[in-house]
Amino acid sequence: MGRYELLAEQIKAQIVNKIWRPGERIPSIRQCCKTAGLSPMTVLQAYQLLESQGWIYARPKSGYFVAHQTLNLQEPTRQPVKLQSTQVDINNILFDVLQNTKDSSLIQLGSAFPDPQLFPLKALTRSLASSSRKMSPFSTVSNLPPGNESLRQIIAQRYAQQGMQINPDEIVITSGGMESLSFSLQAVTQPGDLVAIESPTFYGALQAIERLKLKAVEIPTHPRTGVDLTVLAQSLQQLPIKACWFMTSFQNPLGFCMSHEDKRDLVSLLALYHVPLIEDDVYGELYFGNEQPLPAKAYDTHNTVLHCSSFSKCLSPGFRVGWVAAGEHAEKIQRLQLMSTLSASIPTQLALNEYLRLGGFDAHLRRLRRTLEQRQHQMLQAIQYYLPDSVKVTQPDGGYFLWLEFAKGMDSFALYQQLLAEKVAIAPGILFSSQKQYTHHIRINYALPWDSRVENALMLIGQLVDQGNSC
Amino acid sequence: MGRYELLAEQIKAQIVNKIWRPGERIPSIRQCCKTAGLSPMTVLQAYQLLESQGWIYARPKSGYFVAHQTLNLQEPTRQPVKLQSTQVDINNILFDVLQNTKDSSLIQLGSAFPDPQLFPLKALTRSLASSSRKMSPFSTVSNLPPGNESLRQIIAQRYAQQGMQINPDEIVITSGGMESLSFSLQAVTQPGDLVAIESPTFYGALQAIERLKLKAVEIPTHPRTGVDLTVLAQSLQQLPIKACWFMTSFQNPLGFCMSHEDKRDLVSLLALYHVPLIEDDVYGELYFGNEQPLPAKAYDTHNTVLHCSSFSKCLSPGFRVGWVAAGEHAEKIQRLQLMSTLSASIPTQLALNEYLRLGGFDAHLRRLRRTLEQRQHQMLQAIQYYLPDSVKVTQPDGGYFLWLEFAKGMDSFALYQQLLAEKVAIAPGILFSSQKQYTHHIRINYALPWDSRVENALMLIGQLVDQGNSC
Repeated sequence: MGRYELLAEQIKAQIVNKIWRPGERIPSIRQCCKTAGLSPMTVLQAYQLLESQGWIYARPKSGYFVAHQTLNLQEPTRQPVKLQSTQVDINNILFDVLQNTKDSSLIQLGSAFPDPQLFPLKALTRSLASSSRKMSPFSTVSNLPPGNESLRQIIAQRYAQQGMQINPDEIVITSGGMESLSFSLQAVTQPGDLVAIESPTFYGALQAIERLKLKAVEIPTHPRTGVDLTVLAQSLQQLPIKACWFMTSFQNPLGFCMSHEDKRDLVSLLALYHVPLIEDDVYGELYFGNEQPLPAKAYDTHNTVLHCSSFSKCLSPGFRVGWVAAGEHAEKIQRLQLMSTLSASIPTQLALNEYLRLGGFDAHLRRLRRTLEQRQHQMLQAIQYYLPDSVKVTQPDGGYFLWLEFAKGMDSFALYQQLLAEKVAIAPGILFSSQKQYTHHIRINYALPWDSRVENALMLIGQLVDQGNSC
Repeated sequence: MGRYELLAEQIKAQIVNKIWRPGERIPSIRQCCKTAGLSPMTVLQAYQLLESQGWIYARPKSGYFVAHQTLNLQEPTRQPVKLQSTQVDINNILFDVLQNTKDSSLIQLGSAFPDPQLFPLKALTRSLASSSRKMSPFSTVSNLPPGNESLRQIIAQRYAQQGMQINPDEIVITSGGMESLSFSLQAVTQPGDLVAIESPTFYGALQAIERLKLKAVEIPTHPRTGVDLTVLAQSLQQLPIKACWFMTSFQNPLGFCMSHEDKRDLVSLLALYHVPLIEDDVYGELYFGNEQPLPAKAYDTHNTVLHCSSFSKCLSPGFRVGWVAAGEHAEKIQRLQLMSTLSASIPTQLALNEYLRLGGFDAHLRRLRRTLEQRQHQMLQAIQYYLPDSVKVTQPDGGYFLWLEFAKGMDSFALYQQLLAEKVAIAPGILFSSQKQYTHHIRINYALPWDSRVENALMLIGQLVDQGNSC
């Protein structure tokens, strides 16, 4: 054990023994150097270790504080959902929310994008330059759908590392995950069909359903365990559901990861009804546990799962490269692609292939996961500190979203508007349902770098919610 | 006048005076050096000048031959079309034809792609490398729809150079021209609506119509003058047509460029019926005349034209960057984009912006147009030489397609299959209509570099058509 680890152990013991209590400031690095007779670097290392383990947290220009070890936060509740098929309306609010994402003057707590500084931009740039120098004039045609062969091989290899047998020929490279989901949905439905989704659900699913003139059936979904399989089974029996679109790992907005058993049962249930599952797994790589959760696709013995993912959430949103492991639907999806975007951008396909071949991806992912986990902890601390005790919040094991439930009657869309005037963006709950539900809920992105602006934003949310309650 | 120009004039005079007759070989460069007492470089320059002016043509390993100055080729006829709305079927043949494009062992006379070696790959690669080095982490969000601001400005400037006032905010950058067309169609129609198209038409229009569950009304179209405005006017009166999708300049497959008067009349006619025009102008830059033909958009005083184009046909197919000047529909198109691909690939948007800012684009276009014009001439010579006299062929003033009409009863799909067995790909006529028409027509891509393989392919087409006729 090094000196800094010894020091960290001592401070940890002091916290356990309540020498320093949650919320209290511990000695500054300078003070600690004097007391312990250690170098500033050693003390800093000890503090960083404690921070990464969640024992303390930094507040900008204020020093280090003892974390609320047992986060005293309640879990949001499963909301009742009307079991009906609903026509999905295009959402004006959503367009505004997405347009806000471009406004660099806003604190982007409402964004669906991770902090762009978390990505290995330099390495990607090198791969882009190097692979494009090697690009042949014929790469335009040779990388037409299903897409770059070498890239499809790497993706198949990553499936294989999880014990899944996916043939590269079943994989179609698309212009991002949203396109792979949208093609998958179109490949298995006709206008007017019913599609089962989670409630709350990713608004992209609502949009795709609306665009393809389908109807949504919202299935009640628990913030920690996921979609209610009993209700789903009933719905499959009662309604002519033609497809399911579920996010099985680190769902947006709830953050739950379905258990392996539930994923297996889900696949069996759908196979029974011959209903395909469009599995949105764009956050699967962002797990905080010891290993990547298997997707439902891993249990897909009947070829009913179209597994969609992308590099947008963990590597390079702007490259617009995603894929779908579509099984027997692969050819149909290529046809849809030839009718709409023809192919994913070739230079970015080639650059990702080169980047992945160089082998730094997994090291990047490990750093990314650790950072996101730390940022979640920091955000939860701030929520406990600044938000009313009545708030309920998820504590997901991956991804970068928190789902907050406030007291009933609280108007999260009004909060959204008030905050926008103060240059803070959040995602109001109504975006995540076609039934105008979740009016006292918000989604928060915790992937932002923690600084005083973000802390002030949290403080402001607390104040506004308090004011709203006292009105 | 330089030495090589003098020599060229002498040879031209000899051809006019029938010293060398069409189809005859003129003296080799070596022979000519001796006779005229000039350097090989001077003679080569003279021959290249004559070739570019269409007086002579090169045949691989055989030397230079006198061109058939007055091409003795007939024009294809306007085909009768049933004026009915038709449900568009997905076309299995088309998928095969497009998949063939990837097969490098085929002679790609059926491809819709220009010869990839015609593009400034090195300059684009430099721009890709250089712009990505400057890429900020925030470029992911700042280039969300409507797309890179500087690139939209350049596009607006290029419109302005043609005397058109297009605000950059009306322009939406898309993942290629096909996406801009597809979004435009979706923005102005509902499933079940009627859409007027040319006959024959670009198969991409048929696919988009099928994908969006629309119905096609094919308007008879003349191979040289374009869509029949009288029939269009009647159709607008009789049928509830909700949109037109026309390619007004260098149409695929016919190659016609509508006259300015017709374009103006078309826009007026559609304004009268409040029917939007989706103008596919992806070949507009590939003109052989003195200036770029104005698109119909130039006459759009009532904001009824959505002008779609891309960089795919003249600069970089694989980059997948196109745009639409959508006027008041710009916001709706951004919404459709956010629902499907989110945005065009950021690195390729930035690279194109940098390439266009550097200023080599127009010089590249001039070279490209001259090459395409030469290649068209060479292909027409070969058609006259190798194909039966009964063949009718277009001689377009731009683009890179020829449309060939054979004797009635000839089966161009059978020809397609026979040729494929011999490693030659063509586009059979049935791809270009929803009414199973054009069974004795083919489309040929003349943008390929002329070599003995291509010449042999033409020879083979001639033989097979002859055999078919004698059966």
